[in-house]
Amino acid sequence: MTEPFSFRLLTTDGTARHGEISTPRGTIATPAFMPVGTQATVKGLAPDAVRASGTEIVLANTYHLMLRPGAERIAALGGLHSFMNWPHAILTDSGGFQVMSLSALRRVEDEAVTFRSHLDGAMVELSPERAIEVQHLLGSDVAMQLDECLELPAPRHELVRAMRRSLAWAERSKRCFEKVPQGRALFGIIQGGDDMRLRMESAQALIDIGFHGYAVGGLAVGEPQEVMLRTVEELAPVLPAAQPRYLMGVGTPQDLVEAVARGIDMFDCVMPTRNARHGLAFTRFGPVNLKNARHADDPRPIDGQSSCPAARDYSRAYLHHLMKANEMLGAILLTSVNLAYYQELMAGIRSAILAGMFEDFRAATAEAWERGDARSS
Amino acid sequence: MTEPFSFRLLTTDGTARHGEISTPRGTIATPAFMPVGTQATVKGLAPDAVRASGTEIVLANTYHLMLRPGAERIAALGGLHSFMNWPHAILTDSGGFQVMSLSALRRVEDEAVTFRSHLDGAMVELSPERAIEVQHLLGSDVAMQLDECLELPAPRHELVRAMRRSLAWAERSKRCFEKVPQGRALFGIIQGGDDMRLRMESAQALIDIGFHGYAVGGLAVGEPQEVMLRTVEELAPVLPAAQPRYLMGVGTPQDLVEAVARGIDMFDCVMPTRNARHGLAFTRFGPVNLKNARHADDPRPIDGQSSCPAARDYSRAYLHHLMKANEMLGAILLTSVNLAYYQELMAGIRSAILAGMFEDFRAATAEAWERGDARSS
Repeated sequence: MTEPFSFRLLTTDGTARHGEISTPRGTIATPAFMPVGTQATVKGLAPDAVRASGTEIVLANTYHLMLRPGAERIAALGGLHSFMNWPHAILTDSGGFQVMSLSALRRVEDEAVTFRSHLDGAMVELSPERAIEVQHLLGSDVAMQLDECLELPAPRHELVRAMRRSLAWAERSKRCFEKVPQGRALFGIIQGGDDMRLRMESAQALIDIGFHGYAVGGLAVGEPQEVMLRTVEELAPVLPAAQPRYLMGVGTPQDLVEAVARGIDMFDCVMPTRNARHGLAFTRFGPVNLKNARHADDPRPIDGQSSCPAARDYSRAYLHHLMKANEMLGAILLTSVNLAYYQELMAGIRSAILAGMFEDFRAATAEAWERGDARSS
Repeated sequence: MTEPFSFRLLTTDGTARHGEISTPRGTIATPAFMPVGTQATVKGLAPDAVRASGTEIVLANTYHLMLRPGAERIAALGGLHSFMNWPHAILTDSGGFQVMSLSALRRVEDEAVTFRSHLDGAMVELSPERAIEVQHLLGSDVAMQLDECLELPAPRHELVRAMRRSLAWAERSKRCFEKVPQGRALFGIIQGGDDMRLRMESAQALIDIGFHGYAVGGLAVGEPQEVMLRTVEELAPVLPAAQPRYLMGVGTPQDLVEAVARGIDMFDCVMPTRNARHGLAFTRFGPVNLKNARHADDPRPIDGQSSCPAARDYSRAYLHHLMKANEMLGAILLTSVNLAYYQELMAGIRSAILAGMFEDFRAATAEAWERGDARSS
């Protein structure tokens, strides 16, 4: 814990930003993509393989870890970094999103959320203060405030209520966070659904409270892509330039490029890892579904030019076979392929911003996706 | 394919033997353990991780691969080594054992076995000649004859019939094998169940036909360990010293040490990989079941002295968590742990034989297993 959390904006290209986050666990070049390590593991990969993909920070889920194996247990074992053998930076969410999406029975009140654990049926309480405490026990480098997230579309009065409650929780989170040791960061979460006036009110109030970074929450929950991008586009100018901006739960490679174009610095998403387990590879030429029978005799690798051995050293025919045979190695190799592709994309984005050529990069990348991955003759 | 298959017996210590197999795909120090890569993958590990465990040869299953993705397809893709990205030696079984254990419907006749595929219900024929052809299409470095394997105990007349039929198939296999390119090896398989007179008859007849190596089949199918060891003990002296001896489908670490003591050179078994997926780690101090609740708070690694990062860099508490949470990484790490332990055991056996201290090694190893893995104070 030598160096406190900080963010340096290094350069901009239009609205796109390239910067660097410093944490006690190392620096993170932005725009950054954070793979999701829900249960203290990025599914299917050992930490050295996650690191080899170019990953500098992972996200872990407070909800899952507080239920199993338990935050106090992880703390007693030396914290999450040691527990999962990942010495680099970790961002933890607050648990709020999973309470809404995973628990069949829950009661959201101003004081706290009470929910039934999806594991053993026990009733569990999660308050803004407990969310901070749990994240502190885990040893998170970047903590998130507890918020209330609604599915879209939602009636306006519901959006108002959830946004105001999230603001009240933001204040309580900040007060509680100020008691924890120096060197860690707390991000506020902008809510308000698809209502831009509510979004602006939320953002302004969070800025008044003051956080190390600002997240856009409550998106990628069913709304059209243009709603998401418009929300980001309108919010970015009001957010402090000197602090990182995190678009939660996003997204496809295209989402990432378009959100970076609108000023976002950080992302997390299960898409590269979850889709890998279903046989989908993300590539420079768009997505490739390895379960498709057309790959059964295809000797070509996913991408012979990739720096990722999994993309280079195995034929599509073999990956197809592994997926059809339900072999773990299929998911393992495709998870590597996808994380490497996501991180190569982010590295390409950063280089392009640095060179002042982000628009060219954006166009060339979109064109390659468009071209597709049809078998060469 | 520069160097043909050969075996050099380097040294003996009592009945235990240390030697070296040369194949076109590299040399294999014996006694050797072959991890099982049933469907063209050692479950859960990429080939570089298999190699890192000290593995020099893997076994692949003819039965599974001929059904999916198909031997002709693998041949068209450049053979099994290229298909599974494993450039080192591969031994293939003949498919006979799986026909017996996996197919719900089968007819064994002198000409061939006809069976219903467990995948799509198609009727498939496997003759001794087709078994050689399939193994040739795969590009196997060591092929096995088709044999008929019975569960024990079995009536004597059944044992006689299966053994004689296996001998007839051995002759046909040899004739067929002689037509394939030089540099590959064919092993005969001794049958006869737990009847030593039948075993001797089988061994003698196979030696008369002449093979590159001799396997003891039809064991580890439900008989007591002492039956297996006695069979091996009586067979070894009649087998040619200048050729490798392979005990199929065996076994526990203790089985390996005891069979080496009786003159065996090669082993294969799903135990280290399958048990890993069920949470069982093999260690110098005996097996450890990571699913057991006593590991939930245990910060100790599986074995801090191991050369295997998976055994050294993760706490038992973490491995316990991964198994309870049904996370792939649990199976992946324990598979690494177990293969590394099996290969360290084999390396220890070879060193001990070379030093003329096999009996000491055997005693010390058994003593450590005996001592167990109770938590140190």
